Amino acid sequence: MASSDGLPVAGFRLAAVSAGIKVPGRLDLVLMELAQDSTVAGVFTRNAFCAAPVQVARQHLAATIPRYLLVNTGNANAGTGGAGLADARRCCEAVAESVGVAVEQVLPFSTGVIGEPLPVDKIQAGIAAVCAVLGEENWAAAAEGILTTDTRPKLASRHLELDDQRVTLTGMAKGAGMLRPNMATMLAYVATDAAIAQPLLNILWTQAVEISFNRITVDGDTSTNDAAILVATGQAAAAPITDEGDPRCAVFAAALQELVLELAQGLVRDGEGASKFVAVKVGGGSSEQECLQVAYTIAHSPLVKTALFASDPNWGRLLAAIGRAGIADLDVDKVDVLINGVLIAESGCRAASYTEEQGVAAMAPSDIHIEIRLRRGDARATVWTSDLSYDYVRINAEYRT
Amino acid sequence: MASSDGLPVAGFRLAAVSAGIKVPGRLDLVLMELAQDSTVAGVFTRNAFCAAPVQVARQHLAATIPRYLLVNTGNANAGTGGAGLADARRCCEAVAESVGVAVEQVLPFSTGVIGEPLPVDKIQAGIAAVCAVLGEENWAAAAEGILTTDTRPKLASRHLELDDQRVTLTGMAKGAGMLRPNMATMLAYVATDAAIAQPLLNILWTQAVEISFNRITVDGDTSTNDAAILVATGQAAAAPITDEGDPRCAVFAAALQELVLELAQGLVRDGEGASKFVAVKVGGGSSEQECLQVAYTIAHSPLVKTALFASDPNWGRLLAAIGRAGIADLDVDKVDVLINGVLIAESGCRAASYTEEQGVAAMAPSDIHIEIRLRRGDARATVWTSDLSYDYVRINAEYRT
Repeated sequence: MASSDGLPVAGFRLAAVSAGIKVPGRLDLVLMELAQDSTVAGVFTRNAFCAAPVQVARQHLAATIPRYLLVNTGNANAGTGGAGLADARRCCEAVAESVGVAVEQVLPFSTGVIGEPLPVDKIQAGIAAVCAVLGEENWAAAAEGILTTDTRPKLASRHLELDDQRVTLTGMAKGAGMLRPNMATMLAYVATDAAIAQPLLNILWTQAVEISFNRITVDGDTSTNDAAILVATGQAAAAPITDEGDPRCAVFAAALQELVLELAQGLVRDGEGASKFVAVKVGGGSSEQECLQVAYTIAHSPLVKTALFASDPNWGRLLAAIGRAGIADLDVDKVDVLINGVLIAESGCRAASYTEEQGVAAMAPSDIHIEIRLRRGDARATVWTSDLSYDYVRINAEYRT
Repeated sequence: MASSDGLPVAGFRLAAVSAGIKVPGRLDLVLMELAQDSTVAGVFTRNAFCAAPVQVARQHLAATIPRYLLVNTGNANAGTGGAGLADARRCCEAVAESVGVAVEQVLPFSTGVIGEPLPVDKIQAGIAAVCAVLGEENWAAAAEGILTTDTRPKLASRHLELDDQRVTLTGMAKGAGMLRPNMATMLAYVATDAAIAQPLLNILWTQAVEISFNRITVDGDTSTNDAAILVATGQAAAAPITDEGDPRCAVFAAALQELVLELAQGLVRDGEGASKFVAVKVGGGSSEQECLQVAYTIAHSPLVKTALFASDPNWGRLLAAIGRAGIADLDVDKVDVLINGVLIAESGCRAASYTEEQGVAAMAPSDIHIEIRLRRGDARATVWTSDLSYDYVRINAEYRT
């Protein structure tokens, strides 16, 4: 099986079927089955208006170790009040009854339209079908089945060696709009057959999410339904990793971070209407926090984003965004701006060496690397974003979230 | 003279000419002359990356009472370093020499492209011409002459009675993008023939700006060049107002606030690509600050703004924006949402009485009033914004700010 189809992870079976939730025939119901004795870490949206399945998933995860993850697309089950909570639980019950586990061992996830009642009957009807086709080879179908406005699945895999034993990491994610730090309309599921102790798994997952999914933004909007789950089935031959001091922990953490960064960047590349993939790297700050503040102000500026769409080396808009980022005592007369390696602004002015031709050439590629040098310290941070295009407006003016 | 042309203010002469700064034949140079013994209050951008003319205007205003205000469009003289500062001063010198005042008595203002050298020679060449045509009747030409991407001038006038004496207030403003609280690519000039003592004028102006220009946002971007100036020439027959206890002060302040709110709303109505004029009123908050935080999160949300463009009563996006506004302990299950008077969401869910037909009808007009009830206190605040349309993208992808 090719790596691009998602390498199978021992002890993690999954499947996708069409339950006809919104569009007939489209894969819209995904079930994942975790081997007994797996460890599971979860991170959820910080939006105060969080969807019913997020509330239920948090409760269930706190109560016990899950055995099943159930995802539907086409309906977010958000803004649905007490009825929505009951609906999310009924979906979990349907799985629990079908496979013979406790209802708390099922975590529900939903993504799609906000404020519509969840079609529980359709989901219930699909559960027998999806249970029947569970398998370790179904990552590609599942990655397809969790999509909404995404144009393509995001799937990534790694092999690594721990104790000379091969370990596998495979993950999938969805989310193309409503993306921003603190999670997006984003669902992400990563599984490994390594054995990782529960407290350590939580730490590794929080760290990995922080530098990947929490460093991307398409439009600054945060979803009500975000969730990211890491599962370690422990079915590989390598001995369990139980603490950060274990040298294998760093090896695993590096592979995990690389994998989720690939997924996160894949979300930005498939951002709604995106024609550019943009890294905004801010260095020379007094703190990582201020670097992030500058980077996000740039990444969220509609004027910067429309200039990116136009491939316009408009450094004035970049400097204006830096200037309004709210950094105390910022001396804009020290700031340098580089686009794809070309020094465009130096010490707050157009660089003496800069020509408009250089700028136009620097902005032409679809991958743009903006580098800001604040020249007041040693801290740095990078976020990834996309441009603001006609298609972003079209997609969001037509699509009922 | 019709009020829509701007009622003349005794002691305040102005004129606009074409200096060929960017587009030949377009009015792009405006001069305003203030009667001796006027009082003047100014508010400027808080962007750390502020343009050369803003720096010079601040210095000059701190040093003495201005007699002349010089505005050019087509070039912002921002990101131009020491040369830009010298250029701004040279423009002031040209006026000072031409009319025989001290250079500090001239305030410079620029708006247009960032990062290009100011064509000082063209401005110098235009100064004799603009001095020659100064007059109290030229508000309409001046309001035209300060525009950039605006599609129409913003001009407002009021008469009021103080001591049974007629007093006039006239103002003009420009700015259609890069608009947000803490000022926009916004220039505003208001003049009155009332006599207002200097310290009181500063207070009244700060208050008026706070509830008008600082309550509007088109795209969340803040300009490097914003400035708002209030001039009181004291040429009316009414006795001077020197303190807030004077009952006439409240009368004047109310008229001033009404006038600048009209100008500020005019900017939003002419926002780049705007097809909707949107008031976002947040009530029932614990503090005005949290109401503003919710209102701005809504007003800046690209998903809300594209839904407005689509006339889509997408209350889910509104609740999602409220949820991520960062309000501590916000109970979304208490929040109500009304659009143009229709109760759409009640206690965080779709209102029982609500029908999609009602929502579609409520979103149809070009003026949209969104009302959010947080139901946790008595504070409230309103901001005004526009939608996010194809034209916003087109304008900003084509126009070099």
